[in-house]
Parts: sequence; C-alpha cells; structure tokens
Amino acid sequence: MNIVLLSGGSGKRLWPLSNDSRSKQFIKIFKTEDDGYESMVQRVYRQIKSVDGEAVVTIATSKSQVSAIHNQLGENVGVSVEPCRRDTFPAIALAAAYLHDVQGVAEEEAVIVCPVDPYVEEDYFEALQRLGSRAGASEANLVLMGIEPTYPSAKYGYIIPVCNEEISKVSVFKEKPTEEIAREYIAEGALWNGGVFAFRLGYVLRRAHDLIDFIGYEDLYGKYDTLTKISFDYAVVEHEQNIEVMRFAGMWKDMGTWNTLTEAMESNSIGKAIMNEQCDNVHVVNELNVPVLCMGLKDVVVSASPEGILVSDKNQSSYIKPYVDEIDQQIMFAEKSWGSFQVIDIEEDSMTIKVTLNPGHGMNYHSHAHRDEIWTVVNGHGRTVVDGIECQVSAGDVVQMPAGVPHTILADTRLQVIEVQIGTDISVHDKMKMELPDTVRRK
Amino acid sequence: MNIVLLSGGSGKRLWPLSNDSRSKQFIKIFKTEDDGYESMVQRVYRQIKSVDGEAVVTIATSKSQVSAIHNQLGENVGVSVEPCRRDTFPAIALAAAYLHDVQGVAEEEAVIVCPVDPYVEEDYFEALQRLGSRAGASEANLVLMGIEPTYPSAKYGYIIPVCNEEISKVSVFKEKPTEEIAREYIAEGALWNGGVFAFRLGYVLRRAHDLIDFIGYEDLYGKYDTLTKISFDYAVVEHEQNIEVMRFAGMWKDMGTWNTLTEAMESNSIGKAIMNEQCDNVHVVNELNVPVLCMGLKDVVVSASPEGILVSDKNQSSYIKPYVDEIDQQIMFAEKSWGSFQVIDIEEDSMTIKVTLNPGHGMNYHSHAHRDEIWTVVNGHGRTVVDGIECQVSAGDVVQMPAGVPHTILADTRLQVIEVQIGTDISVHDKMKMELPDTVRRK
Repeated sequence: MNIVLLSGGSGKRLWPLSNDSRSKQFIKIFKTEDDGYESMVQRVYRQIKSVDGEAVVTIATSKSQVSAIHNQLGENVGVSVEPCRRDTFPAIALAAAYLHDVQGVAEEEAVIVCPVDPYVEEDYFEALQRLGSRAGASEANLVLMGIEPTYPSAKYGYIIPVCNEEISKVSVFKEKPTEEIAREYIAEGALWNGGVFAFRLGYVLRRAHDLIDFIGYEDLYGKYDTLTKISFDYAVVEHEQNIEVMRFAGMWKDMGTWNTLTEAMESNSIGKAIMNEQCDNVHVVNELNVPVLCMGLKDVVVSASPEGILVSDKNQSSYIKPYVDEIDQQIMFAEKSWGSFQVIDIEEDSMTIKVTLNPGHGMNYHSHAHRDEIWTVVNGHGRTVVDGIECQVSAGDVVQMPAGVPHTILADTRLQVIEVQIGTDISVHDKMKMELPDTVRRK
Repeated sequence: MNIVLLSGGSGKRLWPLSNDSRSKQFIKIFKTEDDGYESMVQRVYRQIKSVDGEAVVTIATSKSQVSAIHNQLGENVGVSVEPCRRDTFPAIALAAAYLHDVQGVAEEEAVIVCPVDPYVEEDYFEALQRLGSRAGASEANLVLMGIEPTYPSAKYGYIIPVCNEEISKVSVFKEKPTEEIAREYIAEGALWNGGVFAFRLGYVLRRAHDLIDFIGYEDLYGKYDTLTKISFDYAVVEHEQNIEVMRFAGMWKDMGTWNTLTEAMESNSIGKAIMNEQCDNVHVVNELNVPVLCMGLKDVVVSASPEGILVSDKNQSSYIKPYVDEIDQQIMFAEKSWGSFQVIDIEEDSMTIKVTLNPGHGMNYHSHAHRDEIWTVVNGHGRTVVDGIECQVSAGDVVQMPAGVPHTILADTRLQVIEVQIGTDISVHDKMKMELPDTVRRK
C-alpha cells in the first residue's frame, strides 16, 4: 500500500518534551520489546512495516523535521518536504504530486493519508489496508475511516453514516459538538473522524489542479509559499458527494495531551524517578540525569527536560498551550541533520554546549562574526577543518576558533564535543555558511 | 552579648536544595529589603547585629561548613570548628573552651547558645539579650528560653515552669509528647523548649571538665574524635536542679521541613516559575535556569536544583528523609573555600564542570593520577600555575593539564572556568595536594 503520514507542527501541548525544534511524534516514550524506547513515529512506522513489508511510506512534513525523521527511521523512508506550513490540503496535494512525479505512482493506485501520531495496534493498519483496497475498487472518490466512539467526546469531529454496515455512504459530517450533542450523534450511529482518507491518486491530483495553478511537483514545490492555508476537509471533503466511510472498532487513542499520553505509558515513570506509596496515578517522564522525587501526589504528571519542568494535574494538562506560548526560553536541546546539541551552561558573555555528532556526519563549514569558540573533544574520533586545515581529533584534543575563522567538525565515529562560545552578542543568527575546501573528504 | 550559634548537619529534609555539602541554613531563600535573597544564617546574623552591634557571634560547626560561613558572613565572624560531629554537648564544650582560651571571654561572662535556624523577628534577639543578662545576674546555673506554644505540637520538647511569671524556676522537662498529651501540658502552662541556653561561661567549662578529661581548647580539639556523642540536654540540663526559664511570646518558627519553610516565604516562587489560576497554595523554589510550569496543583511544593527535583504534597514533605537517603546521586553543586563548582555534564569517560572562583581566592595546588583536565576561561582575570609555570589568563584562554601535572588557578577578579575532565576513572578521591612554588603570589 501507498501511505502518506502527515507529520504535524511543533506540538507545544507536550512541553517540555516537545518544542519548536522537537515535535511530540519524535519523543521516545513507548517501551519496546528489547526494553528500549521508541517514538510515536517509530512505533507507527514499525507497525505499518509489520502489517505490510512492501508498504511505500511517505512522510509529509516541514523542513525542520527531516533530520529527526531520517535519524529515527533511516534513510529509506520517503519524505515530501513542505517548504513552509500551509495546512493539510496543500500538504496532501504536494505529497500526491511527489508520489506521482517523483515516486512514479500511477493515477489509478490507491493512496491512504493518515496522521503520524495515533496510538493504535496493528489491527488499525490492517484496516488501513482494507481502506486502500476499497478506495482502489469503489465507485466512491473518497473512503474515510470512521472510528467507533467509546465515549461522547467533544474533541473530535463526527461522521454520520447512512447505514450501520462495515462500509456505508456518508450521510453528513458534524463539527466537534458539545458532550450532550455528541451523545445524540452516537445514538444515531455516528463515528469519530480519525483524519484518515483513502483515494485513487488521480482524484486528489485533479482536485489539486482544480484549486491550484501548477504544472507538476517541482512547480508546486516552488510556489508552495504562495498557497492559501486550508484544510483537506474544507477544500475537498466538504465539496465531495461521493464518499464512503469504513468502520473501525479497534483500539485508537489520540496522543495529543499529557493526559492521554500517560494513559499509553506501560510504567509510571521513564528516567530517574522515585514515588512514595502515597502517590496515586502519578506519571514521571524525566530526561535529566538527576532524580525526580514525588511525595503524596494524586493524578499528576511531572516531566523534566533540558527545556523546563512541568508539574500538572492530569486534566489541567490539556490547557497547557497558552502558558507554554508565553515561555521565552531559548532552545536548550535540538536534533540536527548531523546529530544533536544541548545547551549545558549560560553565562552573560558565554554559552557552553554539548555537541553529539553521528558517525559519518559533520556540521556545515561555517564561521561566526561575533564569537570565539573552543572545542574540547570528550569522546570519539573525527576531523576538524579550521581555516582550510584538516586535523585528526580524538578525546582530549582542543581546537580554538577565533571569530571570523571558518570551521567544521566531521565525525568518523560517534563524536562528542564540549563547545564553549565566548562573545558579547551570542546568537543563533550569527552564522555564515560556506563551501568546504575540495581537499576535504565529507565521509 | 556573647552568642554561640549551633550550625547543624546535612539537613536532607530540604532536598534538593540541601545536601551533604550544603546545609539548609545556607540556602538563600528569604527576600531582603533590596530585593535580593538571604539565607537563614545570614538573616539570623543580620538580626543579631541589628539588636546588638557589639554582639560577639561564634558559630559552632563542622569543617565542611566553614567556607560557606565565611562566604556568607565575611571573615570577621568567630567559628569554633568541630573536627567531626559529636552532638551538642561536645560542641558546646568546645565552643566554651574556644571562647575562654582563644577569644579571652571571662568565666563570669554570660554566654547564650542558640540554634542557627529559627525563623524569628528581632524581638527574639532582644529576648536573648535579656536571657543573657539574667544568666549573668541570676543564682541559677542555666536560663532557658521557653516559647509560648501556639498549638499542641508533637514535634517539640516541653518545659513546665513552676509559675507563670516571665521568669520562673523549671518544674520538669517533658520529651516530645503526642498531640493529646501536648494539649494537657499546655493546659498546665507548659512552654516549648526552643533549644536556647544561657549560662555564665565558667559553669559550662566546669561541667565540661567534670565529664571530659582535657586541659584547654587545643587539647579538647585534639581529642575531639574520641568524645562520646551526647546532647547538652542529656549531659547537663537533666542533671541540673538550678534552672530557670524565661518566657518568649513572639513569632518563632522552626524551618525544618519544606512545609514550614514555604510558610515563611514572602512570595509563592523563587526563580523561574509559572502557575495557572487553578493552583492553590503552591510554592516553587527553582534554582535551575529553565522554567517550572505548574497547572492545577493544590498544597504542593516544587523545588528544582542541580541535585534533583522534588514535587511533594506539603504535609508529606515532612517524610522526605528516608527517600533522600536512598538517592545515590553524585554531588552536582558545592560551595568551596575558594568559590563553588557545578557539574554541568556527565558522560561515560568525561565530566564537565563550571568552576566559579571568588576574587583573591584560588584552588589548592594539586594533580590527578587518572584524568586530564582542560580549562576554558569564560570570564574574569586570574593566573594559572601549571607544572610550576605561572600564566595570566582571561576569557577565551585555554589551559591543558595532562594527568600527573600539578596545577591551580588563582582569581584576581571573579573568575569562571569550564573544566572538562577526561579519563576512565574520574573520582573526587583522585587528587594529590602539594605546596605552591614559592615564586607564586597567592593573592
């Protein structure tokens, strides 16, 4: 099957684990069989591949997530990169053009579009396969997945089917209702709209050409920033009469808030945590290397990361976003194409960072106008290039880079470096990238 | 007046702010008039000096606290250093010998002994002055302070006076009772024992010579580790018939737990903290430079420091000690005679530390057998001595010290250094101290 996973935005609702540079789908929070942890995107990708080893998976996402995706899923996963954020219709149109023009998927083939972050079991992806088959064979232009509601939720849109067969024509869509109205919908046989659409590729390409003036993938990519923000629901689904819905009755959870996320955790804590016996329904997710001690708490989630510390009543955790929006905290941890960095100390005219480079990767060759930098290699092997001169480095080596001098570091093995930045005006914007000298081998 | 402040042990009950190297009395938690913060010891010292500018203050404490005391109170405060911990009777005996033999206090002079950490106002120290005057003039050998109880506490010992005059003979002492029995004591006119004793110096010296075989201060100091651990109450107070108690009716709080400490805080937070409107009676003390966000909590204290994070129901916070005892966390922050250090990163074969030196101070001249060290100066001016060679250093300078090479750094101004330690067996015990070459000027 062809499956497009929509990998959304910054996800501040899981602060302090998610931030502008790390979305919730990349947080390693689910226990794996070998006692490690995997992220939502890793879990979903593994489940798809286990149901259909031949599945062609394309992740539709923004530039800022591409490194994290390749770090977590490897280099083979397809990525349709959105040059900027323009909501789901432009994203799906771009992914459709990418599948057709770049991946060579035929117009008659079925494509399934699905959010990247449902917490589900494999039966969900088996259902997606059936959804794809139906989209390929049906007269309908769109086949949606309708999830059988387990309670009258006010958080989801509802689909009212014509009948209660496994596959039915759609009678009408309903926006997020109040709990009371949700109860009425459910009595009428309504299903939750899980945000999953299946269609023949040609259908969405035609709708895209109807609404956007473009030639092919390259052209659409080039003018992406000029497109209007609009959801697939508003742009396509609402105007389409010929829609079917397929029921799904298996486990399905939306991992949007700390409350729902902790429900999916297998143990009460990840990372260093101690709870006394008077704690009841407490979850701790601690990314720091010092312990969290909880005493006498009830229905509380605690999360600590290099970005900050959240202590919240579980129900209240749904209302976190405006508070996090107010936090003007510099980014303390980020995944990059070459590895990751963590800010470990900030003083008035200096900043200290731990840089971790993945084997075979290196930073861009760059210089800073307003700060000196000093690297101390703490483990691994690699090469530095400073002002065109290449040097082997390993643990204990020190490299000094005065302001203005171009430099980079290339990792032969996994490599960790303590970087001290010294200057009166330290900023992420003070960076000039340039070409690496021809004599230097990248990998 | 002569006043001896007993500065006690490690105080794990205020973890993560207090630890083996930082006792609760040194935590800067009380707002000052100029909008800074002061510690319990600073507050008490300031209050004493405000009531009696001529007061001679001696702090009886262990070696490990001497640097913190001088850092917080300056060099002029008297310190009677206990070579090891031996409970309050040996500590008071040693302080008495110190006052007599080192400070030249006469045997007829009154001395007041008081814990270093009561949360009180200046009227308390005015009462201490009256207590001292009474001890100097009275026929009684001991004059104690009796605090008028505000509730039937099971946490304190009780003193039952003979009458309800301001000064009375003591009828009997009572150990910590149950709440019910405390209620009966209070009905009989009992007072809390606040751990304050006043006496003529000669009296305690005679009791010390009765119980310990020693000549003078030097001799007692030398054999201190051979002394039996015993409290002043058991060794002296219980055997003395001729005791008076003086009432005190002012504000008096014991700062032993997070619960009582937060009651004394003027605002609900110290450090970066955000609370939503659904928070009720929540206090945050955050020493980290990232924010703590609290949502929908009630009666909770949150404290974050480089050592760890506490999230506790306020009543439960009294039971913290056994849990903290179990934490096997390396010390992440410590005050030293020359300044302080903070561990900012730990990897398998390396550790990174931020060292802050106070102006005019320097480390010991020392070497390590099993690790290399690299210093990067991030601000300030000073001098390094490496293998006997002295060098001026300032921001941006890098100094490399291979294993075995003796080194130190001396601060001319406040000086901060990022120290990277690299080795397979990094331990605080791997340190050989030696004499600084004669050619090097200490300050």
